[in-house]
Amino acid sequence: MNLGQLACSTGEWLRGIGPESDIVISSRIRLARNLADFPFIRRCTDIDKANIENIVRERVIKTQGLESIFYVDVADLESLDRQFLVERQLISREHAESKGARAVAIGTQENFSVMINEEDHLRVQVMKSGLDLQAAWTQINQIDDQLEQKISYAFQPDFGYLTACPTNVGTGMRVSVMLHLPALVQSRQIEKVFRSLQKISLAVRGLYGEGSQAMGDFYQISNQITLGKSEEELIKQVGDIVPVLITYERKARDFLVKESQADLFDQVRRAYGTLQNAQKISSEETMQLLSKVRMGVNLGLIKDVEISVLNKLFIDTQPAHLQIIRGEPLDTASRNIERAHYLQSHLNSKKKDGDTEKN
Amino acid sequence: MNLGQLACSTGEWLRGIGPESDIVISSRIRLARNLADFPFIRRCTDIDKANIENIVRERVIKTQGLESIFYVDVADLESLDRQFLVERQLISREHAESKGARAVAIGTQENFSVMINEEDHLRVQVMKSGLDLQAAWTQINQIDDQLEQKISYAFQPDFGYLTACPTNVGTGMRVSVMLHLPALVQSRQIEKVFRSLQKISLAVRGLYGEGSQAMGDFYQISNQITLGKSEEELIKQVGDIVPVLITYERKARDFLVKESQADLFDQVRRAYGTLQNAQKISSEETMQLLSKVRMGVNLGLIKDVEISVLNKLFIDTQPAHLQIIRGEPLDTASRNIERAHYLQSHLNSKKKDGDTEKN
Repeated sequence: MNLGQLACSTGEWLRGIGPESDIVISSRIRLARNLADFPFIRRCTDIDKANIENIVRERVIKTQGLESIFYVDVADLESLDRQFLVERQLISREHAESKGARAVAIGTQENFSVMINEEDHLRVQVMKSGLDLQAAWTQINQIDDQLEQKISYAFQPDFGYLTACPTNVGTGMRVSVMLHLPALVQSRQIEKVFRSLQKISLAVRGLYGEGSQAMGDFYQISNQITLGKSEEELIKQVGDIVPVLITYERKARDFLVKESQADLFDQVRRAYGTLQNAQKISSEETMQLLSKVRMGVNLGLIKDVEISVLNKLFIDTQPAHLQIIRGEPLDTASRNIERAHYLQSHLNSKKKDGDTEKN
Repeated sequence: MNLGQLACSTGEWLRGIGPESDIVISSRIRLARNLADFPFIRRCTDIDKANIENIVRERVIKTQGLESIFYVDVADLESLDRQFLVERQLISREHAESKGARAVAIGTQENFSVMINEEDHLRVQVMKSGLDLQAAWTQINQIDDQLEQKISYAFQPDFGYLTACPTNVGTGMRVSVMLHLPALVQSRQIEKVFRSLQKISLAVRGLYGEGSQAMGDFYQISNQITLGKSEEELIKQVGDIVPVLITYERKARDFLVKESQADLFDQVRRAYGTLQNAQKISSEETMQLLSKVRMGVNLGLIKDVEISVLNKLFIDTQPAHLQIIRGEPLDTASRNIERAHYLQSHLNSKKKDGDTEKN
């Protein structure tokens, strides 16, 4: 398996299935773990990092249940390939941009990945389509147990797992849910909702985690505290708030439909028309328009495109994806043209059939 | 025949045929004439106007070659119907808005009309699709000769035909050509071109003549002087400049294609996509977008719509047309929705077929 093949497949979490998948894109849990016998990454020498990578690779490959993985030496990758993995949410930006020996083991269904030598020695993450934190927890707990049989982790009974950053000490767990909230954005309620979440110690981030801007009306909600609570409590904290946010978004959508259906339908169809017809288009405009169309499909205003297709387009139209799919590097102007063609070929199948019949 | 039937037909000059019809929409000639036995309209009593209307109607109906006419008592029309005739360029705004007995005789092919009691007692006009001033002149000259056998016109050998406004004295003739000049507008050369035309005493006006704004990149070029020149000279003056303007516009289009084909194709396709998908759209936006699409079709960038369809949409999407076609009065918001639906039903036939197949 190579990155090109990965680009052609659809990650588990992009399938647009799973509970509440009209609003919840994916559920993720990640665990931060460190080897007991090495210093934290920040204090590692290059040799330490190489040793950690070697040890973890060997153990990960041999771990039961992780046989079907795609192991990628991130340090060896071109910048474009690293960016591709970031866009696919399989590694973090920090992991892509750091130095020294580092790697990622990816489940071939893309339902989990293990980053090696990110901020911590190991960052294990599991992704599920829709709202399904319980399934994510069951799977990551199994993987964690399997790895722990082979790897000696830095752990103190008083604190729990030790991590490079104090905010992760304890469970080392971050529970996050990616939500599509276009109606809350459009009705300008989103800021208020986020202020409320911060008061109960939940973090709100954009599509690519910490420091990234919210694009396409996608938001990640996750726990900020990992210490002093059990894994189940952390999952419950996030899991309990998501249905509330779903209700808010649904109410905002209902309100838009009720108060200004004509406006909404107009916006949604214009967005769809532009995506089907533009001959060059930026990544940002694409995200904005796809977001409107996604809401339109979920509200039954657009019937001839599947949510899974839109979810895939959100990922595939990003800069590195476009270049990997095309198989050659492209500058910004060429990407904007390639992106427009890619969108057309995935959204215009009927029109093309019509043309063929005529010609 | 009634106005609704007229709305369903396509006027001769909208057919999108005739020489240079990618740029020249239509060629028009109008003659201003007044009855010798009545004062000019401005000084007419209501009874004078009624008498003029009576006399002219009777003569017009009996005139050889004018048998196939549709005679409309404009004073009797609702405001909406008058606006409809203005949009269709069969009467002037002034004629629609003035008071007292007045009428219009319309050739059933809409290739000529005779306004009665406009600024002058008679305003005869002939319209041809594309650039064909000679054919327009042959036809209007015949009509004028026929009418003159039955009507005694105000004429002085020194001046020629006498008219209410001194600018029309002499031939009483205005020769005008409607041009579609989107590339000259887009490349910002249009102002320069117009200043040159004014220097040689040609007037430039928008779609609805005097005082109207240029919408959809349509411009009427016509003579300003009617005195001291023969009809043939006036036709030659306008007829000679039109090929120059056509060449300018073609060069501007070639330049756009050469220098920024991707930009141009993008703009044209986006415009087409918006017209096919908008759920509500103003008259102004419609004109702008149709103008881009019309240029796109002429440059071969859009292949699945005929120029004649676009020409008809320019007319049919105007406020009064929409209401006459729909058969009921509509406020602005309702018109914007109706306009969007009308555009879709005329531009989306393939997509609709696709949907039908699927459902």
